Amino acid sequence: MEKPIGHKVWAIAEGYIPPYGNGPAPQFTSHETACILNASDQDANVKLWIYFSDRDPIGPYKVVVPARRTKHLRFNDLRDPEPVPTDTDYASVIESDVPVVVQHTRLDSRQAENALISTVAFPVVS
Amino acid sequence: MEKPIGHKVWAIAEGYIPPYGNGPAPQFTSHETACILNASDQDANVKLWIYFSDRDPIGPYKVVVPARRTKHLRFNDLRDPEPVPTDTDYASVIESDVPVVVQHTRLDSRQAENALISTVAFPVVS
Amino acid sequence: MEKPIGHKVWAIAEGYIPPYGNGPAPQFTSHETACILNASDQDANVKLWIYFSDRDPIGPYKVVVPARRTKHLRFNDLRDPEPVPTDTDYASVIESDVPVVVQHTRLDSRQAENALISTVAFPVVS
Amino acid sequence: MEKPIGHKVWAIAEGYIPPYGNGPAPQFTSHETACILNASDQDANVKLWIYFSDRDPIGPYKVVVPARRTKHLRFNDLRDPEPVPTDTDYASVIESDVPVVVQHTRLDSRQAENALISTVAFPVVS
Repeated sequence: MEKPIGHKVWAIAEGYIPPYGNGPAPQFTSHETACILNASDQDANVKLWIYFSDRDPIGPYKVVVPARRTKHLRFNDLRDPEPVPTDTDYASVIESDVPVVVQHTRLDSRQAENALISTVAFPVVS
Repeated sequence: MEKPIGHKVWAIAEGYIPPYGNGPAPQFTSHETACILNASDQDANVKLWIYFSDRDPIGPYKVVVPARRTKHLRFNDLRDPEPVPTDTDYASVIESDVPVVVQHTRLDSRQAENALISTVAFPVVS
Repeated sequence: MEKPIGHKVWAIAEGYIPPYGNGPAPQFTSHETACILNASDQDANVKLWIYFSDRDPIGPYKVVVPARRTKHLRFNDLRDPEPVPTDTDYASVIESDVPVVVQHTRLDSRQAENALISTVAFPVVS
Repeated sequence: MEKPIGHKVWAIAEGYIPPYGNGPAPQFTSHETACILNASDQDANVKLWIYFSDRDPIGPYKVVVPARRTKHLRFNDLRDPEPVPTDTDYASVIESDVPVVVQHTRLDSRQAENALISTVAFPVVS
């Protein structure tokens, strides 16, 4: 099971980090995640760009997903080149040098009871 | 990262705007959104049609998603040719002159705690 | 926009109708829906089979989705050849004589605040 | 409707079993499920691997989905070669000897009102 699985480019059109939350941190902090699975036997060098409604995209953010590992990357934790603003519509494009699989999830804890969404991201066939 | 990503036609079979909600507007107004990502370097001229269970489709609604931008389009905000009725089953087809990526989301705040859904829309391969 | 969009066969591996609910019927009755969009200019004759974990599939259930219409079909409302049991794991296969798009949704109102899921069904490429 | 439907390899990049829950077991136990539909007329011998962020994958877990049956497999119930840890990010790869369809679902009941996610898994085209 060490053959590469997935695609090298993925897009997530929905993006929104709620500006506040309820419940113990970090589990119940309102957040968005790009879950990246690298089932190959090579480390994946991943670049991520954030698109906005009213200004140029920022990026690349860079992260390594080691061979045969998964990384559940919180958009909230991205710092370089700059933090992703909360309460702001965005979208993202993810590019990897080896095929990976990407799934998008949000936990919204603005109200007392949390709400969740998840969908496999859109794979870009080259 | 300015190459076009996605497809020119997308469909969303699920559509329903809850007729009421709880919590501060506009964030907690019950709503549906088509999140559109235009990662290309050309503006996307987007047309949208609404399908119903018991009458002919309406449209096209027209919207521009500028080059290298995302637009999170609320169905609630569509006005021309006519508002999308609430509490009514619908579906939608989205057509763009450049490839885009579309994701569908609903926030349902009819009860005290909001519920969320999201899925990448269905890409129509031409 | 009257060209056919979608596929003729779809599968939904997840299926579960919660056995009870809270809130006014029918909106807050726990339910599952197959949202079917027929964007073509021909009526779609749709057949649906329900698969179980421990007995043979039942079906076909038959429904017509008229040309240029959507139908949000509640599994709860299926009667012929037999009702879909609640509190039971199932899956479904949907077959249409013209291409359609199918999205799967559940509203679970077993607790005071409803929870929602939705995903585009799996399109079977023939 | 006994022809095989689906793919032989699927990936789920998101995985997380909440460490606690509220409400009567087993329905409201926080859990994750891989819903597998085998619409073919041959039994499906399914192998499943779990990927982590910080150690080698474990597996294969083995399960049979009989011909023309669905199995909603709870990750919580996997025991051999070892239980799937809770409160831990993971991902999974599912391999079957006949084509199947896989959908991923989580019920999170950490708070008083449960939250749900679901998405069709990522089909790996061989």
